[in-house]
Amino acid sequence: MDLNIYKNLERNVEGIFVNVHPIQRGGVLTPEARKALLEFGDGYSVCDYCFESRVDLVQKPPVRNLVQDIVEFLNMDDVRFTAGCRHAKWAAMHMACEPGDSIVVDSLAHYTSYLAAEANRLKVFEVPHSGYPDFTIDPQRYAAKFEEVEKKTGSLPTMAVLTHVDYRYGNVADAAGVGKICKEYGVPFLLNTAYSSGIMPVDGKRLGVDFLCGSGHKSWAASAPIGILATTYEWSQQIFDKSSIRGEWSGRGFTKKEVALFGCSPVFGAPLVTLMASFPSVVERVKHWDEEVEKARYLARQLERIEGFHLMGVRPTQHTLMNFETLPLHEVAEDHKKRGYFLYHELKKRKIMGLHPGMSKNFKINTYGLSQPQVEYVARAFIDIAEENNIPIEEE
Amino acid sequence: MDLNIYKNLERNVEGIFVNVHPIQRGGVLTPEARKALLEFGDGYSVCDYCFESRVDLVQKPPVRNLVQDIVEFLNMDDVRFTAGCRHAKWAAMHMACEPGDSIVVDSLAHYTSYLAAEANRLKVFEVPHSGYPDFTIDPQRYAAKFEEVEKKTGSLPTMAVLTHVDYRYGNVADAAGVGKICKEYGVPFLLNTAYSSGIMPVDGKRLGVDFLCGSGHKSWAASAPIGILATTYEWSQQIFDKSSIRGEWSGRGFTKKEVALFGCSPVFGAPLVTLMASFPSVVERVKHWDEEVEKARYLARQLERIEGFHLMGVRPTQHTLMNFETLPLHEVAEDHKKRGYFLYHELKKRKIMGLHPGMSKNFKINTYGLSQPQVEYVARAFIDIAEENNIPIEEE
Repeated sequence: MDLNIYKNLERNVEGIFVNVHPIQRGGVLTPEARKALLEFGDGYSVCDYCFESRVDLVQKPPVRNLVQDIVEFLNMDDVRFTAGCRHAKWAAMHMACEPGDSIVVDSLAHYTSYLAAEANRLKVFEVPHSGYPDFTIDPQRYAAKFEEVEKKTGSLPTMAVLTHVDYRYGNVADAAGVGKICKEYGVPFLLNTAYSSGIMPVDGKRLGVDFLCGSGHKSWAASAPIGILATTYEWSQQIFDKSSIRGEWSGRGFTKKEVALFGCSPVFGAPLVTLMASFPSVVERVKHWDEEVEKARYLARQLERIEGFHLMGVRPTQHTLMNFETLPLHEVAEDHKKRGYFLYHELKKRKIMGLHPGMSKNFKINTYGLSQPQVEYVARAFIDIAEENNIPIEEE
Repeated sequence: MDLNIYKNLERNVEGIFVNVHPIQRGGVLTPEARKALLEFGDGYSVCDYCFESRVDLVQKPPVRNLVQDIVEFLNMDDVRFTAGCRHAKWAAMHMACEPGDSIVVDSLAHYTSYLAAEANRLKVFEVPHSGYPDFTIDPQRYAAKFEEVEKKTGSLPTMAVLTHVDYRYGNVADAAGVGKICKEYGVPFLLNTAYSSGIMPVDGKRLGVDFLCGSGHKSWAASAPIGILATTYEWSQQIFDKSSIRGEWSGRGFTKKEVALFGCSPVFGAPLVTLMASFPSVVERVKHWDEEVEKARYLARQLERIEGFHLMGVRPTQHTLMNFETLPLHEVAEDHKKRGYFLYHELKKRKIMGLHPGMSKNFKINTYGLSQPQVEYVARAFIDIAEENNIPIEEE
C-alpha cells in the first residue's frame, strides 16, 4: 500500500484559463461557498445545533429558512435535500409508485432516471425524440405513449418523467406542454431540472410539475452530492412519509424520520453549506440567463464558421450546454499521431480543459458562467486549431 | 426572502477549546483533507479525468487505488463508496434481499438500519440486548432469533445485521461471535462499522462479515456524505450488479452502471477527496486505538468521582463514545433557571461544546482524537460544575 499517492492531491488544473466541461459549469463554487467550505468541512458540521432529528429542520445554520426560500424560488410547496438528483428521482418514484408499475420517460433522459426506475422495479416506456439533428421531444407524444401504456398494461402509467434540459444536446424541453398533458390524463409529472433550476428560471407550478428534482453540484454552485426534491401540497405527505417501522422486541420507532430520505438526508456537511452559501448568487444569476444564452450563441456562431462544424439540437441554442458535430476533426484525427486525443491536447496547450478526451466526431461544451472574453478566447482557439489543420473557415 | 441570512455562514465555534460531540469526533478533517477540500470543492471536481463512467474507476485523483487500498485495509474483497453508511446498508439489503424477506437486527441498531430495511420492504426481527446498565448483545441470541424467525416465517432470515459499535452506549459488540453463528446458519452477515472502521482496527474476513458498511463522515475524517460498502468475492457480483434495463424505444443501456449505487455513486466532490486525503492518517491512527481508549477511560474514572455519575454500557469502556447517567445533574436542573439546559451552558462558558442541550439525566460524550490535556480539561470542567452545584466529589 503506497500511501504517498494520496498526499498533496491536486486537480492539475493550475494555469488553466477556461474550464468548459459540459457537466461542471453550474457547479463551480461561488467565493462565498468556498469560504463556507472551510468553515463547515468537518463530517457533521451542520449538526452542531440539530435538535429535531432532521437536517431540514436545523435552524443554525439556517437550513429551515433555506427550505422555505427554495420552495418560493422554485414555486413549489415543499422541499427536501437529497444525496444528488438521482436520489431525488429514486425517492419520488419509491413513494409514488409500486414495484411493477409502468412509467413514461423521455428518450433523452439521463441514465440516472432509468436507474432510479430500475432500482424501484418499474417498467420504463420511452417517449421518442425527433432524431437527428434536432432531437426534440414533442409533448403530444406523451399523450400517445400514455394511451399505448394503458392499452398494453391495462392502466395509465404511474408517473411521467421529463428531462427539462437534456445532457446530450442541451435542448430545453416544453415542460409546460408535457405538464398540461399529464394533468389531462391525471398522470403525476416528474421534471428533472438538473441542468435548469439553479441556472435558469424554473417555475414548478406554472409548468404543472408534481415532483421537481434538481442537482446542487450540477447547477446550484454546490459541492457534491446534493440534490433537491420539491413537491406540492397534494404529494408532500406521501413523498416525505415518515417511518412507521416498530422494533419487534424493543418497540422502538422513528416517527420523525422520512423513509425515502433514509431518515435524514446525509448532506449535512460541505454539500448543504456550499449550496446555502451560494443561494443568494443563484437567486440573482437565474435573472441573467438570457445573457448566458447569448454567450453560448456567440460561441456557436463562431464555431459554425469552421467548415463541417454543426450545432446539434435545437437552433439557435437555448442553453449553454451544446453539442457540436465536427466530422472534419475526425478526419484530422485519423491521420494524427494522437488520434482522437489530438483535440483534447491542442486545447490543453491553450489552457482550455473540459472536453472529453478521445472524441473528435462531436463534442459537448458548456459556456455557463464564462465571461465574454473567455468565450471569445475559446472560439479563437478552435478556429486556430482548425486553421492549423487546414480546415476552411468562413469569413465573419 | 431575506438572503442576507446566508451570508458569512459561521459555525459559531470560534474560541471553542474542545468539541466532544458524540458523533463528530471521527469526522473531524485532517489538515490534508482541509487542503484537498479547497482544491476539489467544485461540484464535479473528481470527474475531470473520468473516462470509464464510474467514480470508483477514476485514476486521477487515484480513486481506483483507494478502492484497492481500502479493500486491503478492511480485509474484504471489493469496495464501493456510497452516499453515507445508510445508503450502503440500503444497497446491501436491496441487492441481497427480496421485498417481504425477514432480517435480524440487534436492538441497539442505529435508526438508519431500520429505515434501510423499511425502504426495502423487509420485516425486521430484533435481537434483544441485556438491558440496564450494560446493554450488551449476546451472540447466542442471534442463533435463537434465527430459529424463531424460521419457526414463524418458514425460512431463515435473509440477512443478519450487527452494529459493531452502537451509538447509544459505545459498546463494542462481539462481531466475530455473531459472524460465527451466521456462518453456521448460512445467514449473510452485515456489520455496521460506522463507529469502528476508520478509528479502530477492523478485519472483515476475521469477523466473518459478508457486507461491511462504514461511514466516512463519522469515522474516516471525511466531509459528509460518504459511506463505504465492502463485500466478499462471493457477493461482489450480486451486490454491485450492473444495470440491465434497456430503452424500450431507444434500445439504450447502461451496462457499466451499478444499480444499487444509482449508477455511479455521487460522492465525486468534497466527500471522496477528503476521505482520500485523510486515508494515510486513518491507516496510521487505527494503530493507536488503545491510546484513545485509555484517554476515554481516564475521563470515565474522573467523571465517576462525581456522586451519582455512572458510565453506562460495558465497563471499563472499550470505546471513546460513552454514555453517562447523571441523576444529580437532573436534580440541579429542576431548580435551575435554565432547567435542563444549564449543563450545556456551563460547558459552553468553559469553551466545551458538543453535548446535547436539554439533557441532564444522562449525556453522551466522545473523546476520540482529543489530546490528554484536553481530556483533563474536560474532566476538570465537569468536576467544577459539580462542585459549584454542591454535588459531592470523591477524592482521587
